[in-house]
Amino acid sequence: MTSEIKKKESQVPEPSLRRMPCYLTYLKLARRDQQEFISSTQIARDMGVDPTQVTKDLSYTSIVGKTRVGYEVNTLIDVLEDFLGFNKLDKAYIFGAGGLGNALLHDHKLDQYGLTIVGAFDVDPKLIGTQIQGVPIYHVNDFKKIKEDDVSVGILTVPAEFAQEVAQTMADGGIKGIWNFTPIRISLTEDVVIQDTSLYAHLAVMFNRMKNLSDKK
Amino acid sequence: MTSEIKKKESQVPEPSLRRMPCYLTYLKLARRDQQEFISSTQIARDMGVDPTQVTKDLSYTSIVGKTRVGYEVNTLIDVLEDFLGFNKLDKAYIFGAGGLGNALLHDHKLDQYGLTIVGAFDVDPKLIGTQIQGVPIYHVNDFKKIKEDDVSVGILTVPAEFAQEVAQTMADGGIKGIWNFTPIRISLTEDVVIQDTSLYAHLAVMFNRMKNLSDKK
Repeated sequence: MTSEIKKKESQVPEPSLRRMPCYLTYLKLARRDQQEFISSTQIARDMGVDPTQVTKDLSYTSIVGKTRVGYEVNTLIDVLEDFLGFNKLDKAYIFGAGGLGNALLHDHKLDQYGLTIVGAFDVDPKLIGTQIQGVPIYHVNDFKKIKEDDVSVGILTVPAEFAQEVAQTMADGGIKGIWNFTPIRISLTEDVVIQDTSLYAHLAVMFNRMKNLSDKK
Repeated sequence: MTSEIKKKESQVPEPSLRRMPCYLTYLKLARRDQQEFISSTQIARDMGVDPTQVTKDLSYTSIVGKTRVGYEVNTLIDVLEDFLGFNKLDKAYIFGAGGLGNALLHDHKLDQYGLTIVGAFDVDPKLIGTQIQGVPIYHVNDFKKIKEDDVSVGILTVPAEFAQEVAQTMADGGIKGIWNFTPIRISLTEDVVIQDTSLYAHLAVMFNRMKNLSDKK
């Protein structure tokens, strides 16, 4: 019973979780502007969120604001980074080093959010054996041989038709979290977390909203 | 009153919209495998969605399946592409040609989903005047001068501290839809659609789910 309650407590609603990196970015800008304290009202106003929502979101991190002055900016940054796991670097492999995979290899900012890419896998003979931004590219068949114990995240950027098969290879090799950029629904056992980020789904939503707006005129 | 009802009808729920590019990818794979007809049951089973949900999602496109045989694969692909606006190329500019912006310039697949990048804007003197994958890079101050009438989408990949300011520049120059990759909440007038795609928010959700899973053990 106790563990049941505990489990519930540790589950932060996804919308709250999704807002947290926004708070973090906002707070870093506030720190750059030499702001020492910040109130939930100010955060709410600047970010266009309801103040009660801000207080509630931040309460999951167990930080407590001080009456009148609010939160200490530095402390809140530390607490959020810690809570989100952004201050310890998780190692990741990329599967599919062309197109978007290549792009992510060039995006240094992932480091800032707790992810460091230590290797890439592909099937293109032109890529294998080379490096992108210092990250070595291997053949996907060598994955099990190369896989290091402390790499828990796999980024899936292969063409759609190989997505399920490669995801299975990742899981078999001990990957615990798959960041899926393909528009394919991956089906695996429940001990692997799959995080879908389909850029095309977002594009579809944007086009539709733009169309609705222009239809209204 | 009538227009009120009409407006409602044209608004497809976002979860349905987000699933549509997944259906599309799935159907293209089915077509590659020479499948002529497909039932909502088969789609549902392969994609792990409820069959009623599939039928409902597809009903927004006004396609009607045939009893027993289901949907014609080719027709359904056309209808979905048309519905999602993926078969007409919308022109887009990228704001911020480093990091993720650079990455998106290298990701040819965006074309396939209806978006073609025709120009990029930055402030880095090393980048301005050069091209990435044939796309010219201009100084952001030249945006209003260069802006062509038929470019309606802007992709926002600048550093967080410039996000709001650059978004405002985009809107002032006539951009109608902003695809926001920064973790900043952009605030603009209501005639501009803002589509947030914060990779870091997704990362936060994934880390948290992985943590919950390992805590359970």
